[in-house]
Amino acid sequence: MAIFTKQEYLDRVQRVQKRMEMEGFDVLITCNPANMNYLTGYDGWSFYTPQLVALGIDEDEPMCIVRGIDRPGGLVITYLHEENMIGYPDHYVQSDDKHPMDWIGSVLVERGLGDGRVGIDMDAYYYSARAHESLRSAMPNATITDSKNLVNWARIIKSPAEIGYMRDAAKLVEIAMQAGIDAIEPGTRQCDAVAEIYNAQTRGTKDFGGEYTAIVPMLPTGVGTTTPHLTWNSEPFKQGEGTILELAGCRMRYHCPMSRTVYLGKPPERMADVAKVCVEALNVAVEAASPGTTCEAVHAAWNSVVSRHGIVKESRMGYSIGLNYPPDWGEHTLSIRPGDTTELQPGMTVHVMPGIWLDDWGIEISEAVLIGDKAAERLCDFPQELVVKG
Amino acid sequence: MAIFTKQEYLDRVQRVQKRMEMEGFDVLITCNPANMNYLTGYDGWSFYTPQLVALGIDEDEPMCIVRGIDRPGGLVITYLHEENMIGYPDHYVQSDDKHPMDWIGSVLVERGLGDGRVGIDMDAYYYSARAHESLRSAMPNATITDSKNLVNWARIIKSPAEIGYMRDAAKLVEIAMQAGIDAIEPGTRQCDAVAEIYNAQTRGTKDFGGEYTAIVPMLPTGVGTTTPHLTWNSEPFKQGEGTILELAGCRMRYHCPMSRTVYLGKPPERMADVAKVCVEALNVAVEAASPGTTCEAVHAAWNSVVSRHGIVKESRMGYSIGLNYPPDWGEHTLSIRPGDTTELQPGMTVHVMPGIWLDDWGIEISEAVLIGDKAAERLCDFPQELVVKG
Repeated sequence: MAIFTKQEYLDRVQRVQKRMEMEGFDVLITCNPANMNYLTGYDGWSFYTPQLVALGIDEDEPMCIVRGIDRPGGLVITYLHEENMIGYPDHYVQSDDKHPMDWIGSVLVERGLGDGRVGIDMDAYYYSARAHESLRSAMPNATITDSKNLVNWARIIKSPAEIGYMRDAAKLVEIAMQAGIDAIEPGTRQCDAVAEIYNAQTRGTKDFGGEYTAIVPMLPTGVGTTTPHLTWNSEPFKQGEGTILELAGCRMRYHCPMSRTVYLGKPPERMADVAKVCVEALNVAVEAASPGTTCEAVHAAWNSVVSRHGIVKESRMGYSIGLNYPPDWGEHTLSIRPGDTTELQPGMTVHVMPGIWLDDWGIEISEAVLIGDKAAERLCDFPQELVVKG
Repeated sequence: MAIFTKQEYLDRVQRVQKRMEMEGFDVLITCNPANMNYLTGYDGWSFYTPQLVALGIDEDEPMCIVRGIDRPGGLVITYLHEENMIGYPDHYVQSDDKHPMDWIGSVLVERGLGDGRVGIDMDAYYYSARAHESLRSAMPNATITDSKNLVNWARIIKSPAEIGYMRDAAKLVEIAMQAGIDAIEPGTRQCDAVAEIYNAQTRGTKDFGGEYTAIVPMLPTGVGTTTPHLTWNSEPFKQGEGTILELAGCRMRYHCPMSRTVYLGKPPERMADVAKVCVEALNVAVEAASPGTTCEAVHAAWNSVVSRHGIVKESRMGYSIGLNYPPDWGEHTLSIRPGDTTELQPGMTVHVMPGIWLDDWGIEISEAVLIGDKAAERLCDFPQELVVKG
């Protein structure tokens, strides 16, 4: 029931093992649910208890260890042999005096994956400081170092099958964005607009529906648009205020995000002007994002446009996207910002997201792109503009 | 714009400081978004980058440190003085050669919160092993120990205002559950049922809508019901299969969860029998959950019923609920299981959730309860039965 061919999973395993060899790791351990899925096909909302995938440099298959009650799910959805899908006893869950990693570490040692040079995703979500202490104590002969997102980097170039899911996700976010824009009216409650967005992004098309996105719909409104991460409430939208929509579609856990901005009424002149500059600069950035170009060069191309108009932005303006889980659809690899010299390559997928947050309002108009053989291709087909309504 | 009175926040701060004194902590640090919200009112989907709240034993107010672009949001929604709402520079975000905790740690030292006996929520979500290493290096004079969910424990008894939000959340989950049960029909796609659930739980009532829940709607179906945490896809529900719905309502980040099970067609006799036993045992457990009773005694009361019918369950059958963020609405304090001697007290809120997962199918019928002065009160009013349709 895994969603890719077994060969595709084995190719991934070998790609990761090649990177392990380069970094000198005998074993690679990751708690990042996206990395776990990438290597094994495991997919469940079980990352709220400790779990991990461990891969030996010479093993044919990784090992996946989850809470006992989640093992049957793993047997259904992964390609792994039964002995590589392992569950830990429930009394370790959320206990003050023991930790699941005590048990997991001892199993890794037993199975020959707890010794030698062990690379661990030290900054992965769901790999807590406490989890690390327990695992380290249980594997006294391991020399542990940070794998620095080794598997994330192995995921950065998407296969044709993965790109297929990204394109599906693009369709989902187009539908969701339109539903959101249509729903925002003076007097409509924010929660009711979100209901329309959820409905559209989950119901999807007649060929496929959507899954939960790694970030919930964001639609800061009014003064909330000066900052990116406030979520909705039950208050109504107001005439004379802007709302930023940052949404995604998710298909088989692959994400395609998109941001747009809506204004109810006549927008302030400066806002309309900034919106035009944003669109121009966005397209300059997309055009610059050809294979072989560095991330910082894409940023520079974008900045050359906005800086002429007095716009200064400290935060990064893009990042790699794909397979992911809450709390982030970003892959934590390349960032479009000064100092990032990663070269873009065909098969990479990037959210070009130059959000502008000023003192009184903000604007986001973004594009998810696939780096092609010659140029970047927009994954979505959606008007690039400040949407003015009412 | 904080949702509780300033006095309620200050009471919480003092309650936590009292526990800090008992544990011998000069400073308490937490990255748990629910704990951060509890102490400051901070609420945003920004926990995908490092952030924390630090509280000194003698301070009037905690300090909240987030990514720079999220500080304006914090100024809008918290009660904190401006100097206690701090943002870090963006170039620390998702970088290979530096970490936000480098910066945060040095600010804590400067502000007098980086020395002495420091208790940290070591097993909090979003406090990674790497974050801990960076923070520890930046605070060389701190003696760091695990605070063992100190703030979670301080949150366990809800105030009248908090209970009000829990009651709102109960209304939301009732509506969402009914929408889910109504939507499940042979041939209906799982994603379309989820769309109805999302719509109901977000749109809510005319008085208030719902927010995102800490766990997405769970509705394992068919063989998926043998395991609790698989999420939906685009396949249709089938005649002759069961579906478990585990949902919540969320109001001001306070959660009320509920589980029910639907069967399409005539359920197997054993399943109908087990469902009856589950309901009987559930109510015995709820009745047992009076103030002064221990968690393990509640479990024993439940077990005395199910064991008579040959049902054995290894995993815990309940946990504390309330204010929360993804990936879990559980509070990580009390568990209804053998060995947990926590005494129930008025104001606690518990999800009594004795899920039964057998080889071919599973059943979940649960109740969220408020421990009152004399007995436990069900927060929801929803029929307790195996729902049979079609």
